Amino acid sequence: MELTVTRKSHFNAAHRLHVPLWTDEENKRFFGLCNNANYHGHNYTLEVSVTGEIDPVSGYLIDMKVLQNLIEQEVLSRFDHMNLNLDVPDFKELNPTAENIAVVIWKRLRNKLEPTLKLKIKLYETERNIVEYEGK
Amino acid sequence: MELTVTRKSHFNAAHRLHVPLWTDEENKRFFGLCNNANYHGHNYTLEVSVTGEIDPVSGYLIDMKVLQNLIEQEVLSRFDHMNLNLDVPDFKELNPTAENIAVVIWKRLRNKLEPTLKLKIKLYETERNIVEYEGK
Amino acid sequence: MELTVTRKSHFNAAHRLHVPLWTDEENKRFFGLCNNANYHGHNYTLEVSVTGEIDPVSGYLIDMKVLQNLIEQEVLSRFDHMNLNLDVPDFKELNPTAENIAVVIWKRLRNKLEPTLKLKIKLYETERNIVEYEGK
Amino acid sequence: MELTVTRKSHFNAAHRLHVPLWTDEENKRFFGLCNNANYHGHNYTLEVSVTGEIDPVSGYLIDMKVLQNLIEQEVLSRFDHMNLNLDVPDFKELNPTAENIAVVIWKRLRNKLEPTLKLKIKLYETERNIVEYEGK
Amino acid sequence: MELTVTRKSHFNAAHRLHVPLWTDEENKRFFGLCNNANYHGHNYTLEVSVTGEIDPVSGYLIDMKVLQNLIEQEVLSRFDHMNLNLDVPDFKELNPTAENIAVVIWKRLRNKLEPTLKLKIKLYETERNIVEYEGK
Amino acid sequence: MELTVTRKSHFNAAHRLHVPLWTDEENKRFFGLCNNANYHGHNYTLEVSVTGEIDPVSGYLIDMKVLQNLIEQEVLSRFDHMNLNLDVPDFKELNPTAENIAVVIWKRLRNKLEPTLKLKIKLYETERNIVEYEGK
Repeated sequence: MELTVTRKSHFNAAHRLHVPLWTDEENKRFFGLCNNANYHGHNYTLEVSVTGEIDPVSGYLIDMKVLQNLIEQEVLSRFDHMNLNLDVPDFKELNPTAENIAVVIWKRLRNKLEPTLKLKIKLYETERNIVEYEGK
Repeated sequence: MELTVTRKSHFNAAHRLHVPLWTDEENKRFFGLCNNANYHGHNYTLEVSVTGEIDPVSGYLIDMKVLQNLIEQEVLSRFDHMNLNLDVPDFKELNPTAENIAVVIWKRLRNKLEPTLKLKIKLYETERNIVEYEGK
Repeated sequence: MELTVTRKSHFNAAHRLHVPLWTDEENKRFFGLCNNANYHGHNYTLEVSVTGEIDPVSGYLIDMKVLQNLIEQEVLSRFDHMNLNLDVPDFKELNPTAENIAVVIWKRLRNKLEPTLKLKIKLYETERNIVEYEGK
Repeated sequence: MELTVTRKSHFNAAHRLHVPLWTDEENKRFFGLCNNANYHGHNYTLEVSVTGEIDPVSGYLIDMKVLQNLIEQEVLSRFDHMNLNLDVPDFKELNPTAENIAVVIWKRLRNKLEPTLKLKIKLYETERNIVEYEGK
Repeated sequence: MELTVTRKSHFNAAHRLHVPLWTDEENKRFFGLCNNANYHGHNYTLEVSVTGEIDPVSGYLIDMKVLQNLIEQEVLSRFDHMNLNLDVPDFKELNPTAENIAVVIWKRLRNKLEPTLKLKIKLYETERNIVEYEGK
Repeated sequence: MELTVTRKSHFNAAHRLHVPLWTDEENKRFFGLCNNANYHGHNYTLEVSVTGEIDPVSGYLIDMKVLQNLIEQEVLSRFDHMNLNLDVPDFKELNPTAENIAVVIWKRLRNKLEPTLKLKIKLYETERNIVEYEGK
């Protein structure tokens, strides 16, 4: 029996959208207020979904405490209360759009999860802007 | 890399569920309170999800401002603060159930989006009644 | 010991903001889209708060089932899936603004509650527009 | 045209996670606080999603009142305000993890729905712990 | 300058409403399903509000980490994943209605807070049933 | 008749908690992660509540469009997508704690509102940390 379990967590971070290849004017025109040189920020909500077989003895697909610890180690401890552009090496050469943040989180967790488990990331930058990535 | 981005928005509208082929009694029995001849209304919440490739330079799948403008032009400016039965030509001959509203929105946006992008509509009529359509 | 208990419920209704003393143009200028002659609608969320002494034996301030029945009888059965302007006599000569709806609900419930209990109404017309009234 | 409609409902229940094959110590180590012999509890939120063809006359995929009655008969009347371990026969020999609760609900509703309709269950044990099952 | 800061937290617990002075029949008639002898449960949401003067140097009214630690020590570590009737001494002779739980939490925190600070408790038993207590 | 109307809005900003009078070590010990020199950020939710008399003709306490324009002019256009420490003159010499942000917003709106109206600010820094100020 294949199920999906989802764990929701939160991190608060500053970021700025900027493409170094473009002029300041091009960046401002394309990214608008999100290009502000002094950064702005968000309360990101992160949903990590893992799909796999249920263990017939325990009735668990994955121990939520194990999953939460993994999310804390790989994501929250690195991203929470940070400046994504300046403090997080993953974004040293990668524009921290919601899309790219979701992909980075997916790759970090993918490396630590058993290969039999499928993984999906849903990231809310705000209540109105949401990104999903499942590694396809 | 294929991702999905979702933009959430809202519109408030009046409507009435009614099938002209049926007698008043049949309509009342089938649709109950939703058949009220004087209309009732909802705060609809609309989630528009677009699936496609991320642009490797900008890190965007689609510019959210472009998507939001499209939703405003095609949906909000036509549906918000309207009577769906009387004011919106799409429902002149179509019963404005949540299902039909979702299909109409999907068709309107599908016509304006690049064909390489997949489109999914999720419409909340209330917090407890939700419809999804992805054009299958 | 004085506490406050709150019961949350919902109703869906159509309405139109319109002052008969004003010209159509004045109404349109003042109320904007809310003046649409064919009505629009909302999912109203209603919070009824009652303040009073806790019963030392039962540990209840008021039986929530009794309060819920009162709300259903006085508000939901009259307002839900209705057109406030056309179907609800309370608004025959009263503009159904969120403010006036809150006052009408307060008066209806005030008449049925024991005089020792204080009453407060909080009405969400949308998630972003909220009115409170406590009879002052 | 294939759509998905979702109905959200709630039930409040006590439960305890425990595997009879394991020692008390093994149970405590594995399930932690969730193993408390005296039970703890949750407000479960249940989303039942049904996928199928829209009826071209009524514009309904399924009558939400019919679906809601089915959920009340098969789930809410059996689970709400109950102790899942002691009061619900489905869990007499099955550990009431969120995963197993979702599977039990899916099976109960699957038996009552027309075979042409697809069924998916989403169960929130808390706002942060969520399980999905669609019978694969 | 007087402000109010609020910290929101959660605990999951089982409980049963029962008055030992009453017969089983009286209890069942009065409390309905909430009287189930085997308990049911809730995800309680707790909002602790503290009112006082802002510190002009730090700009804090109270350090949220200090407040959160206090809530964990006085409430969460005692109530979370517990059976309120059986595991929590505060309810050995007190019916664990939402009203009484709110009063117990208020008293516990009141003892630990500086007397110059005002304290208010808001407890959500479900999304629809809420109790507030401020020690009057 | 005195009522309260509330308008909810949002802004996203970066900030850093720091007291220039203190050493770096004191700041780090007191503010923890919130002291990060490179800033972090939040999606702030702002509720502006205005209390006053209802206009007996229009049924409005205040025109919500007028209130929303005031909030946009005084708060959103200055704070949204900004770095509160660097971009907003109000915080040039004031630590941007949630408490101080609420007071600044209150003062800005107080200056523009008619003196007969009472004003209250409720600011959510996160879903779990909330500040209220009403000018006392």
